[in-house]
Amino acid sequence: MNFADRLVAAIKKKGNPICVGLDPRLDQIPAHIVTKVISEKEHTKAAAAECFLEFNKGIIDAVCDIVPACKPQIAFYEQYGFAGYFAYEETCKYAQEKGLIVIADAKRNDIGSTAEGYSSAFLGEVDLFGVKVPGMAVDALTVNAYLGWDGIKPFVDACRYYDRGIFALVKTSNPSAGELQDQELSISGVSSDFAAGDRMTVYELMAHYIDSWGADLIGDSGYSSVGAVVGATYPDQARILRKMMPSSIFLVPGYGAQGGGAADVKPCFNEDSLGAIINSSRDIIFAYEKSDQFDSATYADAARVACFEMVQDLKSVGIGS
Amino acid sequence: MNFADRLVAAIKKKGNPICVGLDPRLDQIPAHIVTKVISEKEHTKAAAAECFLEFNKGIIDAVCDIVPACKPQIAFYEQYGFAGYFAYEETCKYAQEKGLIVIADAKRNDIGSTAEGYSSAFLGEVDLFGVKVPGMAVDALTVNAYLGWDGIKPFVDACRYYDRGIFALVKTSNPSAGELQDQELSISGVSSDFAAGDRMTVYELMAHYIDSWGADLIGDSGYSSVGAVVGATYPDQARILRKMMPSSIFLVPGYGAQGGGAADVKPCFNEDSLGAIINSSRDIIFAYEKSDQFDSATYADAARVACFEMVQDLKSVGIGS
Repeated sequence: MNFADRLVAAIKKKGNPICVGLDPRLDQIPAHIVTKVISEKEHTKAAAAECFLEFNKGIIDAVCDIVPACKPQIAFYEQYGFAGYFAYEETCKYAQEKGLIVIADAKRNDIGSTAEGYSSAFLGEVDLFGVKVPGMAVDALTVNAYLGWDGIKPFVDACRYYDRGIFALVKTSNPSAGELQDQELSISGVSSDFAAGDRMTVYELMAHYIDSWGADLIGDSGYSSVGAVVGATYPDQARILRKMMPSSIFLVPGYGAQGGGAADVKPCFNEDSLGAIINSSRDIIFAYEKSDQFDSATYADAARVACFEMVQDLKSVGIGS
Repeated sequence: MNFADRLVAAIKKKGNPICVGLDPRLDQIPAHIVTKVISEKEHTKAAAAECFLEFNKGIIDAVCDIVPACKPQIAFYEQYGFAGYFAYEETCKYAQEKGLIVIADAKRNDIGSTAEGYSSAFLGEVDLFGVKVPGMAVDALTVNAYLGWDGIKPFVDACRYYDRGIFALVKTSNPSAGELQDQELSISGVSSDFAAGDRMTVYELMAHYIDSWGADLIGDSGYSSVGAVVGATYPDQARILRKMMPSSIFLVPGYGAQGGGAADVKPCFNEDSLGAIINSSRDIIFAYEKSDQFDSATYADAARVACFEMVQDLKSVGIGS
């Protein structure tokens, strides 16, 4: 089934559009996990990676019946080299086994055969001595489209062929996002939709491209498997982008720890109350640290309660069922 | 020593600015390597990764006394999961041991603590249960600056602290590079260098940022550790960019297989005949395939000869000594 349709079905089934960010940090992993792993593997990178995997499994078990998706950010894992990469792969596999849609947050970008390499690695199949075998085969991948269509086509091809999805950066949640993204362009040569001299920002141009790149990957749900990353911290821009990309699903970082609230993410949704998936990382996976009720031994329970609280927070602005 | 100074010294010592792209493809690895590896590891991803590493070691041994640098593209390795990632790490380590400057081509990009994660993974140190240990510790990393300064600062900090370098995408070598990069901007709020209403392209704005981000990392050589990726296929733009970023070292893809010739890369250099490093991948590492003189058994010798030919080609336009 088309990725967008699968994601929309999962959102409807769970009754909320929450994505749990699996961004582990070694100094926040509960002591009982660290102690157990170190006793076997000592203070190695393999031990750090094993701590991440054990921690993640606890989170995934605790939230997989509540939320539709998770998003492991690969930078945290790559820090620990190939062992970290292994923990990343195993985390994705475990989350998929538990019924979660897995969005690999890796913001990969390159051209031609190199982009094909990333596409094979995350979404498609790889050549193994003449036989095609699956790569990581996550459900979706974040990408960066600075290089234009050449850099996106291999991913879109994989979306079509393997029923996967991508989310391309449009308007990111960080303070300096606007240094490039908010600059105003005099459009030329983009498409017949625009007259020479029409004006738009860089993020609006990117939105236009993403809308067109995803046009023939729209499923029965009315949504496309080519989505967009739109930060929770810029609600006014989200409102503009929602109109420009009616069929794109927005992957929305920046809720919670980065400052975006439920009202801020509301403009990311269409009138059907669909069209966005809201990510929260630290506020869920490390909820135990800010809790009176839980401690590190019960970190997974704390994450579960934090998900329920986020469900309620989103419901307060009419998101979810 | 400052990364730029180390790179310039290596270019002067070797007498050429060639960077060998280590972009292995399984169906082009010589049969004698494949046969040997498969006999031990069968048709596994670990075997594919081992083939890459063995192949790369042959190339590195053959070219390390000729060229100053190499650039392994991580997408090719990530296809084979954690085993591929291990082969990538080992390739970088081996190349450094053989005296090559290693530029990790990974085009990483993110914000805040996530960008710090990538920076630690490739350039700096990582937290291992309270102790700082080196990550991959390559010499330099390619990055994508679509997210603005927030996404670059963690890398620049690592450049300063660990004497590493970065190369940020400015004008890429691919046909659709211009879809975003060539769009014309009405500049506002960039810096006091520009009046409201001044015009420049997206790639020129990126060049301006990179020039300013690297301003206080300029070494004794006069070059900065914050460099730029400028494709060989757009010589006119390279000429403009060379003037806008006099202190930046250009990492130039697109020579050879992608169509750029020696004359095309000439504008990437300053009048001191420095300021750029020219990458060639397929034409060097798979030179044996197009050769009458060599076959797959002598692929490394073919690569060595291809390097000498590239040295001569660049010398024909006055590049190198």
